Amino acid sequence: MLGLMQDWPLTCTRLIDHAARNHGAVEIVSRSVEGPIHRTTYRELHERARQLAKRLQRQGIRLGDRLATLAWNTWRHVEVWYGAMGLGAIYHTVNPRLFPEQIAWIMNHAEDRLLFVDLTFLPIVEKIWPRLQTIEQVIVLCDAAHLPPTTLPRVVPYEDWLAEADADFAWVEVEENTAAGMCYTSGTTGDPKGVVYSHRSNVLHALCASVPDMLGLRSRDRVMPVVPLFHANGWSLALSAPLAGSALVLPGPKMDGQSIWHLLDSERVTLTAAVPTVWLMLLQHLQSTGAGLPWLERVVIGGSACPRAITRAFEEDYDVRVMHAWGMTEMSPIGTVCAPKAGKATLTGEARLDLQAKQGIAPFGVELKITDDAGTELPWDGRTFGRLKVRGPAIARAYFKAETDEVLDPEGFFDTGDVAHIDPDGYMQITDRSKDVIKSGGEWISSIDLENLAVGHPDVAEAAVIGVPHPKWDERPLLIVVPRSDTQPRAEDILAYMQGKIASWWMPDDVVFLDEIPHTATGKIRKSALREMFRAHVLPDRRPPGARDEPPR
Amino acid sequence: MLGLMQDWPLTCTRLIDHAARNHGAVEIVSRSVEGPIHRTTYRELHERARQLAKRLQRQGIRLGDRLATLAWNTWRHVEVWYGAMGLGAIYHTVNPRLFPEQIAWIMNHAEDRLLFVDLTFLPIVEKIWPRLQTIEQVIVLCDAAHLPPTTLPRVVPYEDWLAEADADFAWVEVEENTAAGMCYTSGTTGDPKGVVYSHRSNVLHALCASVPDMLGLRSRDRVMPVVPLFHANGWSLALSAPLAGSALVLPGPKMDGQSIWHLLDSERVTLTAAVPTVWLMLLQHLQSTGAGLPWLERVVIGGSACPRAITRAFEEDYDVRVMHAWGMTEMSPIGTVCAPKAGKATLTGEARLDLQAKQGIAPFGVELKITDDAGTELPWDGRTFGRLKVRGPAIARAYFKAETDEVLDPEGFFDTGDVAHIDPDGYMQITDRSKDVIKSGGEWISSIDLENLAVGHPDVAEAAVIGVPHPKWDERPLLIVVPRSDTQPRAEDILAYMQGKIASWWMPDDVVFLDEIPHTATGKIRKSALREMFRAHVLPDRRPPGARDEPPR
Repeated sequence: MLGLMQDWPLTCTRLIDHAARNHGAVEIVSRSVEGPIHRTTYRELHERARQLAKRLQRQGIRLGDRLATLAWNTWRHVEVWYGAMGLGAIYHTVNPRLFPEQIAWIMNHAEDRLLFVDLTFLPIVEKIWPRLQTIEQVIVLCDAAHLPPTTLPRVVPYEDWLAEADADFAWVEVEENTAAGMCYTSGTTGDPKGVVYSHRSNVLHALCASVPDMLGLRSRDRVMPVVPLFHANGWSLALSAPLAGSALVLPGPKMDGQSIWHLLDSERVTLTAAVPTVWLMLLQHLQSTGAGLPWLERVVIGGSACPRAITRAFEEDYDVRVMHAWGMTEMSPIGTVCAPKAGKATLTGEARLDLQAKQGIAPFGVELKITDDAGTELPWDGRTFGRLKVRGPAIARAYFKAETDEVLDPEGFFDTGDVAHIDPDGYMQITDRSKDVIKSGGEWISSIDLENLAVGHPDVAEAAVIGVPHPKWDERPLLIVVPRSDTQPRAEDILAYMQGKIASWWMPDDVVFLDEIPHTATGKIRKSALREMFRAHVLPDRRPPGARDEPPR
Repeated sequence: MLGLMQDWPLTCTRLIDHAARNHGAVEIVSRSVEGPIHRTTYRELHERARQLAKRLQRQGIRLGDRLATLAWNTWRHVEVWYGAMGLGAIYHTVNPRLFPEQIAWIMNHAEDRLLFVDLTFLPIVEKIWPRLQTIEQVIVLCDAAHLPPTTLPRVVPYEDWLAEADADFAWVEVEENTAAGMCYTSGTTGDPKGVVYSHRSNVLHALCASVPDMLGLRSRDRVMPVVPLFHANGWSLALSAPLAGSALVLPGPKMDGQSIWHLLDSERVTLTAAVPTVWLMLLQHLQSTGAGLPWLERVVIGGSACPRAITRAFEEDYDVRVMHAWGMTEMSPIGTVCAPKAGKATLTGEARLDLQAKQGIAPFGVELKITDDAGTELPWDGRTFGRLKVRGPAIARAYFKAETDEVLDPEGFFDTGDVAHIDPDGYMQITDRSKDVIKSGGEWISSIDLENLAVGHPDVAEAAVIGVPHPKWDERPLLIVVPRSDTQPRAEDILAYMQGKIASWWMPDDVVFLDEIPHTATGKIRKSALREMFRAHVLPDRRPPGARDEPPR
């Protein structure tokens, strides 16, 4: 027997229909790439997105076609998302910070038909143009007056191109599992992999991420996604803000502390979201100028673990609530947010910061589990760590053009590649990447914990820990250190500093010094390169006799 | 091209799975029908619901079977909901306040196979038993020690019956559009009509109603649904509280002001929900005892329009935020909540109360429109009122066993039977029921506005306004008054009191006095009976010459 409820497919155009109808006068404020602040509304966005869909249709774009963007967060970028989805086409955000050859590879793999590009990134496109196999036309996100001379053929300015259609267009009705968006992950190894969001997953994720313990957006909020739309589905904010009717404030190309502060202040932003690096720049700006954050209520911090000093500064110095979050491109992307449960909301001082160091609790719609290598589930005791796996309606089951569907375990969970522990209240904390964790004598050692400890030594500028082969213990940790300039620390001193702060069987077996550690385009340590470099490293036996046989915690 | 996201059907068991896993130790506190306070947790609820599903399966209950409840809000009632849904069966809440013959009619129409009944309502079942055609067994929600002597055959106490199964049971996997729950509407005319919720509609409604501008439940909330589970799907709280991980406080059979206050206070409830009548009783208790509401943060008020005095008392005297809400059984049930948009949150005094008199704004997932009788959409200007129609994934498209599917208009909207206006910000206010609105000279007059005005006269105890046939104007308003005891108001005095407070063409053409006005079982005025009674009423011409031709506002 079926329910007798209305058939109302979960399509993304309903998000913008809702915003235009119920919150039509709410603002979308953007810093434009050309310079000035631009103001529009959900009502106008709705109109321009329909116009765009009609213009795309005239271009011959059809259901399922991919449209690439190389663009900052601006109103035009959001228009492209909704215009594409409104025709049944697919927005494909490409990360302009990748190496140009990666960008070309991704666009060819996705078979993107059009490319919408900001003025900033036109030089990249000129460089890779000869390699692009499927792009039919490049549309520059500006008006005719701002279009610079270019070597590219058939280039048009967005505003003139768009003006060739009117807004008399009804959204193409699609089944809710139809593809809506696409974003490639840039792993440290192998080719990038394409994640394909559906209308249903985008809408359900926006709903699940909108509850108060997650993003908790309200219509009276003014939301600034500093996190780029090209980073992990823009943390869903281009979808969840219209769902809530929140105003959007978009920073465009200016991501420095001064520019971010200026928008937070002048636009009275109440909630903002970005990676820790951005907040470090903002806090440095605030400290050097004495400026404050009188309007800001909440800041979402994710992408990598949020340093305690950032949390402390926001909460204690500026009275802004930090929402530590975790997710990934394959998760649409939000997996957890560190919201206070009953009994936690009144924590203060270090106990509050201890809680906020965790990545948080899962909302309805995200199932978490931790397992050992054999797939056996591990307890939620806040100590035992294992592979973090996830299941839910907005989590990937496969990658674009992948040959197999087998990224899921027998229960249908996706392996995040992270290693984590979860406490009895459900608070999850990432301890490592599973390919980086050191497997020693059947137990796991967190490379991140060791690195965080090592960088506390005054002479250590950067630290990386990798596992190197060991005849008896499978792997043992090797600490690789970049010393601060003008220092020459000794291995013994650094190990002595670490001694007593961790279980003795976690102590690195050796320390080596490098002038520089290799990084990826997005700034992560390339541990695969380090492992290759130290594959044949011979470990001394530094530890005291008997320590090797100490039972693991 | 399809998205590459996981297949994760929206089934209601996932709500309780989520709560048990992530909020397992969170409490469900109930006042029991037997007397004492009972405490359990989401983890135990999850266990007992699986046990119940297994016990039902042993009883021969199958996918699609209906299970009736005549029960207060207790942990056992919630167990029955989840146990039934976990087997693919259907919880069917029956309102014990209906006339016994209606209860029997509804259970026969639904073809309920089992009946779960609280001790309180056993006498009703004994009375209607001979008429019940499909109930195979009556299960009394108590243990063996509390089971009273009864004339009913095959009666078992719930606890003993349940103990015949263990909890080793995996939820039956169902397609998300499978029926999950059922609730009959009790209109003022005609037979009750069965609304059939699906797993999908229940889950989506719980999500849409959970955003901060709607119920906004957080894991740290302690939520008391005073509104019964048998009233309009229990306002979804038995679904949305587990979704959020909020504690549940269930008042059982005691709905008086003293008992409600006692639970609010001793259980530190942060959010509660009920109809205005309940809050009137609570406020009277507070005023007579001098007690306060130190823990309560928010109160949801719906079911009928919330009197301004109640809003004022909660907000100004007890610092509790009032959330005026509107919905209906056919809407799962929440349609709107009066949340403050940007610029409204800072309203104070009468301006704030003016806003809160409105039923509020629609969340994503509820589409509103107002139309004239021909179905033409009317503007959102805050003045023009029309038939209120709704569309969404948790709104009925048909009734159980109805012969036609034609309750929807050509655009797929359901006619709520309410008349409303909507302002440019999207705030909706109910002005009447469409069958009660008076259609005069092509324009509509709100019977509710006239009644609210008339009861302001000191001699008026109760007032009803109906349209009576008129040769020139189709209908004209007739005011029916029940005078306060020991008063003998004159028609002229009451009309004089109303004069100047409304447009002159809204003025009732006549006033008649009755000792009593007929009501339904749920306390609503039976206007159909009044219309029948005054069908041939001859209206005098009281208004000043020329006023009849005054153009409508």
